[in-house]
Amino acid sequence: MNYSIIRYILCRVLEFQAMFLALPCVVALIYREKEGWAYLLVLASCLLLGGLGKLKKPRSTVFYAREGFVVVSLSWILLSITGALPLFLSGEFASYTDALFETISGLTTTGASILADVEALSKCNLFWRSFTHWIGGMGVLVLILAILPLAGGYNMHLMRAESPGPTVGKLVPRVRHTARILYEMYIFLTVIQIILLLLTGMSLFEAMTLSFGTAGTGGFGVLNSSIGSYPMVSQAVITVFMILFGVNFNVYYLIRARKPKQAFRHEEMRYYLGIILVAVLLITVNIHGSFQSLFEAFHHAAFQVASIITTTGYSTADFNLWPQFSKAILVILMFIGACAGSTGGGIKVSRVMIMLKMVKNELSHLIHPKRVRQVTFENHVVNKEILRSISVFFIAYAIIFGVSALLISLDNLDFTTNFTAVAATLNNIGPGLNEVGPASNFAVYSQPAKFVLMFDMLAGRLELFPLLLLFTPYTWKRS
Amino acid sequence: MNYSIIRYILCRVLEFQAMFLALPCVVALIYREKEGWAYLLVLASCLLLGGLGKLKKPRSTVFYAREGFVVVSLSWILLSITGALPLFLSGEFASYTDALFETISGLTTTGASILADVEALSKCNLFWRSFTHWIGGMGVLVLILAILPLAGGYNMHLMRAESPGPTVGKLVPRVRHTARILYEMYIFLTVIQIILLLLTGMSLFEAMTLSFGTAGTGGFGVLNSSIGSYPMVSQAVITVFMILFGVNFNVYYLIRARKPKQAFRHEEMRYYLGIILVAVLLITVNIHGSFQSLFEAFHHAAFQVASIITTTGYSTADFNLWPQFSKAILVILMFIGACAGSTGGGIKVSRVMIMLKMVKNELSHLIHPKRVRQVTFENHVVNKEILRSISVFFIAYAIIFGVSALLISLDNLDFTTNFTAVAATLNNIGPGLNEVGPASNFAVYSQPAKFVLMFDMLAGRLELFPLLLLFTPYTWKRS
Repeated sequence: MNYSIIRYILCRVLEFQAMFLALPCVVALIYREKEGWAYLLVLASCLLLGGLGKLKKPRSTVFYAREGFVVVSLSWILLSITGALPLFLSGEFASYTDALFETISGLTTTGASILADVEALSKCNLFWRSFTHWIGGMGVLVLILAILPLAGGYNMHLMRAESPGPTVGKLVPRVRHTARILYEMYIFLTVIQIILLLLTGMSLFEAMTLSFGTAGTGGFGVLNSSIGSYPMVSQAVITVFMILFGVNFNVYYLIRARKPKQAFRHEEMRYYLGIILVAVLLITVNIHGSFQSLFEAFHHAAFQVASIITTTGYSTADFNLWPQFSKAILVILMFIGACAGSTGGGIKVSRVMIMLKMVKNELSHLIHPKRVRQVTFENHVVNKEILRSISVFFIAYAIIFGVSALLISLDNLDFTTNFTAVAATLNNIGPGLNEVGPASNFAVYSQPAKFVLMFDMLAGRLELFPLLLLFTPYTWKRS
Repeated sequence: MNYSIIRYILCRVLEFQAMFLALPCVVALIYREKEGWAYLLVLASCLLLGGLGKLKKPRSTVFYAREGFVVVSLSWILLSITGALPLFLSGEFASYTDALFETISGLTTTGASILADVEALSKCNLFWRSFTHWIGGMGVLVLILAILPLAGGYNMHLMRAESPGPTVGKLVPRVRHTARILYEMYIFLTVIQIILLLLTGMSLFEAMTLSFGTAGTGGFGVLNSSIGSYPMVSQAVITVFMILFGVNFNVYYLIRARKPKQAFRHEEMRYYLGIILVAVLLITVNIHGSFQSLFEAFHHAAFQVASIITTTGYSTADFNLWPQFSKAILVILMFIGACAGSTGGGIKVSRVMIMLKMVKNELSHLIHPKRVRQVTFENHVVNKEILRSISVFFIAYAIIFGVSALLISLDNLDFTTNFTAVAATLNNIGPGLNEVGPASNFAVYSQPAKFVLMFDMLAGRLELFPLLLLFTPYTWKRS
């Protein structure tokens, strides 16, 4: 393990954190909020620590997959710990644990809150909460790769460790260009959404925070009713953009490269849109009795489906009160999640589809054991190594799920609450059912349970293994 | 597809069914119950149909894996359909669907009942319910293989399709001998249990029916309180035998072959006993407050843990009222299940352990991508094909689970009920939580939901693929 390069990159991360913290400082200045001092203090500390720590250049630039995983995990933990400080120092959170929970929930784009009254927060805190979604959505190390001229072969290791999906495709041969293009498209889409929300009559503050939450598929709102009290047209804009941010960014790259046909043929996107369509129709039929018109039922079904499959977690209706069939669909969507290469969480549509194809192949394999049939996806044969890694991912996912649900059940909340609390955090969604439903929050859990859920949020965002590796003694051996 | 050989074997199965049905006829004779006529009628019909159908010898003896899967699935369906007839004809079930549910629940050793008042049933019906557990536990085709001189290479295909576990090991080179030895050990253990239960003061009828339910890891009782109202010593005997029947029968074969050292070193058995020990201790500590003594808490914890991990489903206490932590442990045990090569259901301890080892291997693989590490189990390297098939099994399992839970949620029962109803049927356990808890029954579900759960019971017992293949058009093509 090359510790010096890890230290060096973590110091860079601290400098970026200082840069991020500048934004809530500006917000505090505009609204003349004293909570801004907390941000300034933490900003200065990050800058100082980062600057001092990186004075000594790394002794060696040896950088393998192992270093990549460790740096990414530690970066996210560092961003969480420092990002929680201003929230805690502002005095608006009951404890540092709560502030940390909220920050991890923000960065991992979960959007699960421990606050009952969001509206009581100062503007700079609200802004910071939402902005962490935006940072975490596309990833911090991807941003660092896009901006800093980090030489050496380690770009790909960092990119792979932070980006979600079964395979990490480079859009262009150079990782740095890929990272830059990703952020360009990300910023472009976010700006469009802000403009559209402004056109529907939102304030700039709301348009920005809600767009950050949509872009990162986060889900923190600025009102206690989440998105419920905005006009339907604003809700519709958010619905569309949630779906857009759940699409594999390769599709946008293809459009940008003027290959619309290829973009349209993107297999994962087609399945993703197909699943959304089916889910919306089924739920619309299932809930239309409790709405004034079929259109209204469709509107809310579409919003909730888009919110859950993209793992955003905004809500316009308390779906905890919906019929069980609709709730079961939403729970299944929680697990499927958005496309790989998007800002969304969950298992990812491509993994789910490849797993379905594996089962289909197994059936024909059992009938004709000697005939070789391969799994294809996006017009390519999926190689065995990827099939294996998808399977192991799914197994690890199920194990973490089971252990987490067991641990938090010590709080003695009901089975549905525990099950969906883990589903909502491990898939980076936000709300679950029953006591962690859209109308409630995660304050019902004890401190130890909150730490389990924090682990799940980080594990979910980093797709399990980078975080698990931190707990493997093997990782820390000097090679 | 060789249809003629399938017809021939199904006719043989009918003849065996006639033989099985003779037993409840005897019971009816002893207790002078008129319901016995229903059994006699169905017995005669099976004999006639089977005899007529097999008059024409199969044109070809070509028999591949495909034929094996289809024959096994169809045999189980045929046994269910004919086995439900006397229950229905006796007039003690509300509908044929209910009788069918009860029979499938019996044969698949699930033990999920749709009856609120078991004690109202006639003795011959009670006997038949329990006896189906015993038949289904070790398997009908294994029995046919043990008895009939079926020539040809298809023995192994039948054995493989009906026996649970990631790999089907022959104890001795010849499949027929293996089947015979398995049944010898099965009968031996069952008889010992009957004798011990008689010694604790049970009637012969109770000792036999409860031993059938234990041996097959079924779970149908003959009292409304399941095992709750028997003396503690009887409960303890059942606890021990539930655990014994959940052990891989290879262990007993090793003991029988005078290789106690090898038997003791059996890896799956050691994990299985280890899991039981840990679960019992955790639950004892968690529930001891609601019992008079620590010993009593231990006694009930041990009974319920043994009942759930072996997927039997007997109960001495309503664990639905226990703390959430204990319930979460039981739910996790539902999924783990018993050892492969036992009469128990679930995912199986060996699969779970191999999957855990796969995740552990993946972690070291990520750190050192070039270093090859293999998964070992029972002192052997597990080959890649088996790892793949375990992964695909788990994926198919999760898909069937999700789809089933979604479908039965149309009945609008709560999430916990639906989730555990699928867990209890797909893993062949019996009781779940909430409305399908140990003190309740499956009558709460509608007819369509019952069919979904019947599918799950059969799919669980036959380890998914044989049943799934029935619905693959590919299977039915004449090659």
